[in-house]
Amino acid sequence: MLSLKHLNIKSFNENLAYLNKNCLDYSIDDISALSQVEIQTENSKIYAFLQIVDDDSLVSPTQLALNDEAFANLGESEGTEVIVSLAATAPSRTALKRKIAGNILSPQDYKFIIKDIVNRRYSDIDIASFIVAGGTFISANEVLGLTDALVDNTKIDWPYEKLVVDHHCLGGIPGNKTDIIIAAIVGAYGIAIPKTVAKATTSCASVADTMGILCNINLSQDKFKELVTTNRAVVANYEPLEVVDAIKSISNVERHLGLTQQEFLLTEVLALKISAGVTHLLIDIPVGEKSRIKTIYEAIRLRKLAEFVGDRLGIDIEVVITDGSEPIGNGIGAILEARDIIQILKNKPNAPQDLLEKSLFLAGRLLEFDPKLHGGKGYDTAAEILRSGQALEKLNEIIRAQGKKEQPVLGGYTRDVLAPESGEVIAIDNQQINRIGIWSGVRQYLGAGIDLFKKVGDIVTAGEPLYRIYACSPEDLELAETVVEDSIAYTIKNNG
Amino acid sequence: MLSLKHLNIKSFNENLAYLNKNCLDYSIDDISALSQVEIQTENSKIYAFLQIVDDDSLVSPTQLALNDEAFANLGESEGTEVIVSLAATAPSRTALKRKIAGNILSPQDYKFIIKDIVNRRYSDIDIASFIVAGGTFISANEVLGLTDALVDNTKIDWPYEKLVVDHHCLGGIPGNKTDIIIAAIVGAYGIAIPKTVAKATTSCASVADTMGILCNINLSQDKFKELVTTNRAVVANYEPLEVVDAIKSISNVERHLGLTQQEFLLTEVLALKISAGVTHLLIDIPVGEKSRIKTIYEAIRLRKLAEFVGDRLGIDIEVVITDGSEPIGNGIGAILEARDIIQILKNKPNAPQDLLEKSLFLAGRLLEFDPKLHGGKGYDTAAEILRSGQALEKLNEIIRAQGKKEQPVLGGYTRDVLAPESGEVIAIDNQQINRIGIWSGVRQYLGAGIDLFKKVGDIVTAGEPLYRIYACSPEDLELAETVVEDSIAYTIKNNG
Repeated sequence: MLSLKHLNIKSFNENLAYLNKNCLDYSIDDISALSQVEIQTENSKIYAFLQIVDDDSLVSPTQLALNDEAFANLGESEGTEVIVSLAATAPSRTALKRKIAGNILSPQDYKFIIKDIVNRRYSDIDIASFIVAGGTFISANEVLGLTDALVDNTKIDWPYEKLVVDHHCLGGIPGNKTDIIIAAIVGAYGIAIPKTVAKATTSCASVADTMGILCNINLSQDKFKELVTTNRAVVANYEPLEVVDAIKSISNVERHLGLTQQEFLLTEVLALKISAGVTHLLIDIPVGEKSRIKTIYEAIRLRKLAEFVGDRLGIDIEVVITDGSEPIGNGIGAILEARDIIQILKNKPNAPQDLLEKSLFLAGRLLEFDPKLHGGKGYDTAAEILRSGQALEKLNEIIRAQGKKEQPVLGGYTRDVLAPESGEVIAIDNQQINRIGIWSGVRQYLGAGIDLFKKVGDIVTAGEPLYRIYACSPEDLELAETVVEDSIAYTIKNNG
Repeated sequence: MLSLKHLNIKSFNENLAYLNKNCLDYSIDDISALSQVEIQTENSKIYAFLQIVDDDSLVSPTQLALNDEAFANLGESEGTEVIVSLAATAPSRTALKRKIAGNILSPQDYKFIIKDIVNRRYSDIDIASFIVAGGTFISANEVLGLTDALVDNTKIDWPYEKLVVDHHCLGGIPGNKTDIIIAAIVGAYGIAIPKTVAKATTSCASVADTMGILCNINLSQDKFKELVTTNRAVVANYEPLEVVDAIKSISNVERHLGLTQQEFLLTEVLALKISAGVTHLLIDIPVGEKSRIKTIYEAIRLRKLAEFVGDRLGIDIEVVITDGSEPIGNGIGAILEARDIIQILKNKPNAPQDLLEKSLFLAGRLLEFDPKLHGGKGYDTAAEILRSGQALEKLNEIIRAQGKKEQPVLGGYTRDVLAPESGEVIAIDNQQINRIGIWSGVRQYLGAGIDLFKKVGDIVTAGEPLYRIYACSPEDLELAETVVEDSIAYTIKNNG
């Protein structure tokens, strides 16, 4: 029996338990391989990974301390009596080993694995081995099994909606912020669109980042449902679905590894959308030499896989394969992307035409899930909703409902990157633009970003600015400049 | 500039840095993917993974706290001024990603990966992904490259020795403690045998555990070298070779995952032996349906791989493939295995004959590395050294030199497992015996273990004890009994 203490330490994924080394009756050397403990109170039980402390002021031999995550999971107050014991092996460990050995797992195996992840029985090490083993070789039936396991028990039900639609881009294309425009158009039309958002993986800024500077994006499940019902459109996170937590654990490890394995990404997207009660999903797969998906062959493979899983899990999936050869829109980073979006919704003549066209195309396809609009009338309807200002009105409504925010300002440290010669822009390297953006601080600071002045097809003269980098400190600007020195990301062909 | 603090927290593998959340100028949500920091003082630089603290008494906003591992690595005293910044991507990360994607890496790639592991640039997550990706697919040239990368820069040189031999069993066979007997025989003959030991992976107790109850096994490199020179034989860990540290990081993760991937294990064994300056290595591969290596085909593949690497790294390797179909010796667990060894060295009539024979066979092969003994004279020489008491004398000399220890006692909680029917023992399941041993507490408590009364070929009558389980607490005994309920590990054929 030990007394519970809270150590305010955040370690992102794992439950950690801190024990004084004098309260252990076995040698410290033996713990690393057995380091999971089970912590029990009268009402609650959690699992945590052990850290040994040799300082009574941190944890005395009669105490058990838990980090933030574990303390919140246990849900007991400090001083509560807890029983601590070494945990038995997690039930799905043999399945994990079989996957590492190259076997095909059953749907039941995936249920057990996800249950263990939800219950924090997996360390980040275990999750990493699952991702790498699964990413290396996974069959279509396994993608189905894993997606099904990830669909939440508490998935949202929309008993009064015939159609619940959403769109997801499997992209990594910088500046590709169609989602917010789409939500405004589809919402204004009147179809329910509960748009769930997530953190950026490969690209610079995510929908969550861009929407997050316009308004609050963290809604309770009740509020989320209420706003979809009343406003038709929501662009937000929703918590606290159990499985969202499992997906977060997995994607945290993916981000740490810098890995985006297509099948895993697909299962995560589909599970989130199914858990949100989406009935009709449009997936956009941009293809380009410097995009995440590089070939049409790969895009078609993913399309078939998505359709295979969707058919069996009762969600209607349509996949469009689009041009991913250059950034979409002009702004990169939350503030500049929000600017592009507002320009489009306000029908400004200087709004980026490529982002406008792509948004209308995708919104049109979503609208055509409505039987009344079948046969290609979606695009015109979307264009009319935009032209009339209804889409702008809808976005303002969404922002007000979720809680409008003070707009942050752009970083004060800028650098214009100039055309080294005159000619036509024939290519822009998405990956390099993402890299410049990331090093300018775009993932840490809302004020960082890149504003593209020229796109593919534009004629430039030597010395003319191609784009401007914004950073929030001289150091970040310098880091971004170092990346620019490797490559400016633009290819210019001198036609003279 | 922050002031250094030491938090006495042990996390086994990773360098951890604790920062107060108020000393960060970016959002906590963004840290997980970027969580490695570089910590610099005037004289030293280390890398550590970030943990965020929200308690000024643990870490104030003007402090940086390090856990045990990181504090020791930095080697500075509390209060030292340190500069903390987000770390750039580890140099070998692109190589790691290429491995995960299924590519073949170059020797240079492996050098960079191991350098990053040594420098603590890899989190356990990264190491896990390396192990799983490499274990799934690795070419012979890559095994060579990885082994070479793991050979320490500070490897031991034995300028005055013609022959430096060692033996390693790639086994996982319970009770297979030939090593200590072999070291005593070979040392008594006069050939240098610097036997390095490691923790158990699949089997119950390791040579380190068994030797560790007889004497101290942690020697400085100087002491290690001195004792080999004066005594010919040493059975110990040696520290602090840099790469031993990398191997430890890798094998800690392997143990946590419960994985033993043959190629990785082989690189670790070869690199350790080459780093210890071994010129002639005998590898024993026991094959059995319930052993780690299950088929002759697999054993031959590993033999060829070991010879391929050995040839190119200048170590003479001989591989013997032996019977791994049942436990060797009677005792399992440090105390009972030590008992078997002493019985053999004392030429007691009740000493386990299988362990005796196998030890003489292997010691004989090692002795035959001496050109004077070529042609099969090794076995007889080994048997004579044993019979004459010289081997016992040598072991006592080794124990005295390394530092004799007080013998621990066997656990007080025992249970005899009885033969369910009369007949002949025709099989003993190694894996199940290991499982029973592990659950009886053999990896945590020196007093735990199993004493086998019957082996394959023995005739038993119903109700006769097959083996006795020793545990150090009623709970552990109960856990072991639960495993016995699944299977008693013995197959008895009724011939009546």
